[in-house]
Amino acid sequence: MKQITYPPRSQWTEICRRPAINSEGLYPMVQAMFEAIRTDGDRAIQRYSLQFDHLDISEFKVDPAAIREAVKSVPETLKSAIQLAASNIRTFHAQQQEKVQIVETMPGVSCWRESRAIERVGIYVPGGSAPLFSTVLMLGIPAQLAGCSEIILCTPANATAEVAGEILYAAQLVGIQQIYRIGGIQAIAAMAFGTETVPQVDKLFGPGNQYVTAAKQLVQQYGIAIDMPAGPSEVLIIADQTANPAFVAADLLAQAEHGPDSQVILLSDQDELIKQTLEALSQQLALLPRSAIAQAALQNSRAVLLEDMDECMEFSNQYAPEHLILAVENARARSKSIRNAGSVFLGHYTCESAGDYASGTNHTLPTNGFAKAYSGVSLDSFLKKITFQEIDQEGIQHIGPAIMQMAEAEQLMAHSRAVSIRLAH
Amino acid sequence: MKQITYPPRSQWTEICRRPAINSEGLYPMVQAMFEAIRTDGDRAIQRYSLQFDHLDISEFKVDPAAIREAVKSVPETLKSAIQLAASNIRTFHAQQQEKVQIVETMPGVSCWRESRAIERVGIYVPGGSAPLFSTVLMLGIPAQLAGCSEIILCTPANATAEVAGEILYAAQLVGIQQIYRIGGIQAIAAMAFGTETVPQVDKLFGPGNQYVTAAKQLVQQYGIAIDMPAGPSEVLIIADQTANPAFVAADLLAQAEHGPDSQVILLSDQDELIKQTLEALSQQLALLPRSAIAQAALQNSRAVLLEDMDECMEFSNQYAPEHLILAVENARARSKSIRNAGSVFLGHYTCESAGDYASGTNHTLPTNGFAKAYSGVSLDSFLKKITFQEIDQEGIQHIGPAIMQMAEAEQLMAHSRAVSIRLAH
Repeated sequence: MKQITYPPRSQWTEICRRPAINSEGLYPMVQAMFEAIRTDGDRAIQRYSLQFDHLDISEFKVDPAAIREAVKSVPETLKSAIQLAASNIRTFHAQQQEKVQIVETMPGVSCWRESRAIERVGIYVPGGSAPLFSTVLMLGIPAQLAGCSEIILCTPANATAEVAGEILYAAQLVGIQQIYRIGGIQAIAAMAFGTETVPQVDKLFGPGNQYVTAAKQLVQQYGIAIDMPAGPSEVLIIADQTANPAFVAADLLAQAEHGPDSQVILLSDQDELIKQTLEALSQQLALLPRSAIAQAALQNSRAVLLEDMDECMEFSNQYAPEHLILAVENARARSKSIRNAGSVFLGHYTCESAGDYASGTNHTLPTNGFAKAYSGVSLDSFLKKITFQEIDQEGIQHIGPAIMQMAEAEQLMAHSRAVSIRLAH
Repeated sequence: MKQITYPPRSQWTEICRRPAINSEGLYPMVQAMFEAIRTDGDRAIQRYSLQFDHLDISEFKVDPAAIREAVKSVPETLKSAIQLAASNIRTFHAQQQEKVQIVETMPGVSCWRESRAIERVGIYVPGGSAPLFSTVLMLGIPAQLAGCSEIILCTPANATAEVAGEILYAAQLVGIQQIYRIGGIQAIAAMAFGTETVPQVDKLFGPGNQYVTAAKQLVQQYGIAIDMPAGPSEVLIIADQTANPAFVAADLLAQAEHGPDSQVILLSDQDELIKQTLEALSQQLALLPRSAIAQAALQNSRAVLLEDMDECMEFSNQYAPEHLILAVENARARSKSIRNAGSVFLGHYTCESAGDYASGTNHTLPTNGFAKAYSGVSLDSFLKKITFQEIDQEGIQHIGPAIMQMAEAEQLMAHSRAVSIRLAH
C-alpha cells in the first residue's frame, strides 16, 4: 500500500483514480459473437463453449433431476448459513415494497404510481475458482419478491461440465428453475437475443470478468437494460483513534483478496493508527491462501493521512466508494455527511463481509465512482414504476385552461384541442 | 392509419414494430466531436455552434440581467399556467420522498436505506420551432426537490442568439441559475466532460433529436449516467363502446403532431368505433397547423380491431407503450392488468396533454418498448439510495458464523477472518 501524508486537495483527483480498465478493445470481438449467436443460436453457443471453455455441451439446460442430486451434496451447515442469509436479504428487500399513494394534485385530478415487475430477467453468475452462490441470493431474492415471471440463470459449467451444488441449492431456494450452463459473452448474448433453448430477457444482472462487462455494455445498444456499469470491487475505510488496527487490516484484506484489480483505501487522521494497521496487514497477509491476489491488489491501494475526520469524509465523497466502512466513534452521526457511496458499514463490528453475504443489504453495488450517480441493486431494480392519472369532468375544468395555454405556447395545437373538445362537451 | 382486423397473434410482433431509428451511423461523428471538445473545450463548442447552428457565440452563459429582461416578455396568463403546472408537478414528486425505515434483520443487525441527491445534473432542453419550457419543469422540479447542488441547463439559442423567455421563466421558477446557450452534440459533450465555462455533471437528462440521442448513448461509455434510452414519442389508446370517437381522434392527433416519426396505435373491439374515430380524425386533421407532420406520423400508425378488451390489454402489454390511454368503462379496474407502460391515462376525460403539461406526473417516459424494463423520470432519477448497516457486538455473534460458512465455501478466507477476528475479541 502506498502511504500518502497530508496530500494537498489538488492531488486528490489523482489519488482517487481507479486501476485502468479498458473493455472497449473487446467490442469488435463481442460484436462478432453477438451476430453469430443471433444468426446461429444454440449452435453458435455450443461452438463458443468449446472454443473458450473447452466444454462440448449440447444440452445447456440443467436437468431438474441433476439439480436434486447436486443439492444433496451441499453440507447441511452451509445450507443453514445460506438460509439465514436468504432470510435477512428477503426481510430487507421486502421492506422496499412501496404502497400506492393516490395524490389529488387538484380537485378531480388524481395521480399515483404502481409498481410492476420486469417480466423477464436474466442473472449471470460467474464461474471461476469458487461457486459464487451469494450472487444467486442477491439477485434472485429481489427478482422473486418483485414477481418477475421469468427468471433465467446462466453460469459457466466447471471442468466436468457441471454446475456447483451450492449454486443450484441457492437457485432452488429462491425459486429459480431455469438454469443454463453457459458462461461469458455467450451467456449475455443468449439471454439478450434468445436462442432455441434460452429465453430472451428484458434486463440483465450480475457481475463478471472483462468479457462479460464488455458484452453487458454493448448489449444496451440493442435495447436490453442492465443493472449498472461494472468495475473492479473496492473499499474505503475511515478510521479514527477508536479503531482497532487488526479489524481494519482484516477488512482491507477481505476486499483485496477479491481480485488483483481490487482497490482498498484507508483514510485516517491518526499517523499511529495507519502504522499499526499496515503492520497488522502484513502479518495477516502472510496467512492468506489468496495472498498473491491480495498483494497485487495492494499495489493499487493507498493509506492516506489527512487533517481530520471532516477531511476524510470530504475525500471519501470525492472517491465515491462502492463499500465505505466508518470505523469511527459515533459512526451513525458521522454518516450524515456521506454524499456518495454504494453501501456503508457503521462502527467497529460491522465488517464488509456481513454485507457481502448476510446482513440483508444487497452486495451488487456501484464501483469505479459510479456511486455518484447510481444506486446498488434493490427491489426497484426488478420493477418499473408506472404513473397513473385519472381526471374527471370537474378536474378537466380546473386543469384544462392551463394545459391549453401551455400547449399553444409550445405551438402544439392538437394538444390544446384534446382539452377544448372535452371542455365543450 | 393502417387498419388491421383480427390479426393472429403470430403477427403481433410485426404490428408492434416501431419506425426504425438508427443513431449508430452517427457514432463516428459524435466520437470525433467528443474528442475535440475534451481537448479544446469552449473553443470547440464555439466552432461547432458556428458550423451547425450558424451562431457565433463566445459567451455561452445566459446573463442574469438578460434573464430578468426576457422573463418580462412572457404573458401573465402563461406565467399563471406554468405556475399551476409547476405546483402540481411539485406536489406529485414531493410525495415520492422516502422515509428512512430501519429494519432489524436479526438482533443487533440493523439495515436501512437513505437517499442522497446526485450532486451535479445536466438538463438538455431541445430547441426547434417552439420553446419546450414544459421539459424545464419536468426535469428541474424533481432535481430541485432531490436537492441536487448543481443543476446545469443547456439549450440551443434561436436565430437571434437568444433563449426564449418561456424557458428562462420556467428555469427561474424551479431555481435553475446556470443556463448555457449550447445545443446538440456540443451541449451533451460540454456537460459530460466540462469546459472552461460549463461545469461537468454526473448525470444527463432530457429529450433531443437523433444527434442528441446518439451523444447521450455514447456518453455512457465515459461513465456519465443518462435518464433513459430515447426513441420517438408514441401513444396507444384502448377504446370500448363507451368511448367518444372525437375525443379519441383528438388524442391520437395530439401524439401525431409531435413529429413525423411519432407512432399512434388504436385498439378496440368495436368495428364501428374505429370507423367513427378515423372519420373524426380526418376532420380534425384538416384543421391542424402541423397537419403535414401529423399526417407523416399517421403513416407509421395502426388501428387494430381485436376480439375483446382482454386481447386489447394483452396486445398493449406486448407493445409496452410510452403513453397508454384507457378510454373504456371502469378504466381503473381494467388497469390492474397493465404490465408494461410508461404513463397511463384512465377514462374519457384524462387526455394525454394533461400528463404532458400539468396533471403532476412526469412526461419524460420510456419509448420504443423500453417500458418493459424502464420507469419514467421521477424523484428517484435524481437520487441515489445508499444502504447502511450497523452491527453491534451481539449482532456479530448472531450473524458471524453464517458469514464464515459462506465465505469459506466461496474460498474467500480473508472475508471469514474479518468476522473471526471480531468474534474472538
